[in-house]
Amino acid sequence: MSLLVTGSIGIDTVSSPLGQVDGVLGGSAVYFAFSAGLFSPVRLVGVVGDDFPQEFRDVITARGLDLTGLECRTGSKTFRWAGSYQGDMNEATTLQTDLNVLAEAGPRIPDVYKDSRFVFLANTHPTLQRDLLGQLDAPELVVCDTMNLWINTELDSLKETLSLVHGVVINDAEARALAQHKNLVIAGRRILEWGPSFVVIKKGEHGSMLVTRDTVAVLPAYPTIQVCDPTGAGDSFAGGMMGYLASQGDASEPHLRSALARGTICASFAIEGFSLDGISCCTTAQDVEKRLVEYRKVVEFE
Amino acid sequence: MSLLVTGSIGIDTVSSPLGQVDGVLGGSAVYFAFSAGLFSPVRLVGVVGDDFPQEFRDVITARGLDLTGLECRTGSKTFRWAGSYQGDMNEATTLQTDLNVLAEAGPRIPDVYKDSRFVFLANTHPTLQRDLLGQLDAPELVVCDTMNLWINTELDSLKETLSLVHGVVINDAEARALAQHKNLVIAGRRILEWGPSFVVIKKGEHGSMLVTRDTVAVLPAYPTIQVCDPTGAGDSFAGGMMGYLASQGDASEPHLRSALARGTICASFAIEGFSLDGISCCTTAQDVEKRLVEYRKVVEFE
Repeated sequence: MSLLVTGSIGIDTVSSPLGQVDGVLGGSAVYFAFSAGLFSPVRLVGVVGDDFPQEFRDVITARGLDLTGLECRTGSKTFRWAGSYQGDMNEATTLQTDLNVLAEAGPRIPDVYKDSRFVFLANTHPTLQRDLLGQLDAPELVVCDTMNLWINTELDSLKETLSLVHGVVINDAEARALAQHKNLVIAGRRILEWGPSFVVIKKGEHGSMLVTRDTVAVLPAYPTIQVCDPTGAGDSFAGGMMGYLASQGDASEPHLRSALARGTICASFAIEGFSLDGISCCTTAQDVEKRLVEYRKVVEFE
Repeated sequence: MSLLVTGSIGIDTVSSPLGQVDGVLGGSAVYFAFSAGLFSPVRLVGVVGDDFPQEFRDVITARGLDLTGLECRTGSKTFRWAGSYQGDMNEATTLQTDLNVLAEAGPRIPDVYKDSRFVFLANTHPTLQRDLLGQLDAPELVVCDTMNLWINTELDSLKETLSLVHGVVINDAEARALAQHKNLVIAGRRILEWGPSFVVIKKGEHGSMLVTRDTVAVLPAYPTIQVCDPTGAGDSFAGGMMGYLASQGDASEPHLRSALARGTICASFAIEGFSLDGISCCTTAQDVEKRLVEYRKVVEFE
């Protein structure tokens, strides 16, 4: 099933207790695509400036992703983000954000991508998310992310976007802020009232939770000891999840549960290296399934 | 297999967003025993003052627990604690602690309990934990809890206690403080170097983790929507875990995993009511197994 992702493509500078990298490839859509592409072909849509290095294009194409949807805007600069992880590394301290081209008009979806059936709208202004969605012919499954900025400043617009999507993938703090409730099951259920049929709540090192109208699933994170760079963990999770769903062709509850597990494994790879180095150690869906065997042992009990 | 617990027996005052209770039965040993007793007979050892209400004795005996090990010290007052839960309710704000009788000499283990084979030393001064342990003939499995106060002020004594036990049950903040590492798997492994063969790390609403020299298990919490009073959740968890182990007669790794799951369910009951009301809704091991069926569905994936 065709899978399209729209989101940021950026240049990151990251430091953590395990080291520092400067000017590396990043962005939600890239992290998403590197994981989703393990399961299903991915249509990557985003916009960069003319400073976007050729080597980053090469890295993306070497991953088997095509660049049809990568718009390079002359005279603009690529989105840049600098952050630092300390302590339990669950949250980054943002040191600098230069929106650059992301503050301009959003990307256009290429005509050849308009028939996409599965769609992930990574975090951006909820109005832009609807604009992007409106460019598509008849998507079957639309899932979006968001962030506290829009929850705090664009709640009405965000609710309008939520009314149009089938699923939401957000982190625990966002779910609590959006639903105005500390209990994550109750928060998830409240969010469902605005339209989506499922909510996936990412809890960082504590794993993830799926909330539908009928059921709740909770999966712990894969207990990796080498947490190098958590940047993109949530997008890698969403990518593994959506890539798996696209490979199965539907988002029924059993498939959603299986998809959460694949997202969990992709996120565990992603954080084991800086930038895309972690997830790049994983080159096929079989690599994910191999770690999934270990993961099953972790959560096993009689 | 005989199971003995030593710990506090107290009178609590608790407030949470769901209400307030004043002067109710509490204490680590009581919470532990109410859960452990679902699986195995429990020998409860602790000391109270002569202000300890008869009705609390009645509640304890009505649960099928005998009072042989409950020392009532004339002229002393019972331990009292007052706390409040807000926000995500993962941690209590302590409003008042009156150690009272707990600041005096520790309890004596009755002669008829000295042959106990499975032992849980709930949190107290690590030197007192060793004193209690020294009163026992030949325990087969000794597990202890501790707290940040002893990690910060009595580290050498605590390490001496750790060198004598088979297992440790502590919360995530304590594990991180004790091992001086933020990664819980690494923290768990470091604690094993001081003697225990397993460490169970309690993560509140995020579940628990078992770390042995060879393996890691991670189980999420049961996703209850009615979090009324988290007091005693950790002791209820430890009680369910140790009670199950005692019922099985050994602490091999598969049994430890199963025990974690039972502890998870006991904790989920405990937090659904104030004081012992939550766990009291659960009167047999079958009640635990019934919710365990639901729990298996929560963590299920293909």
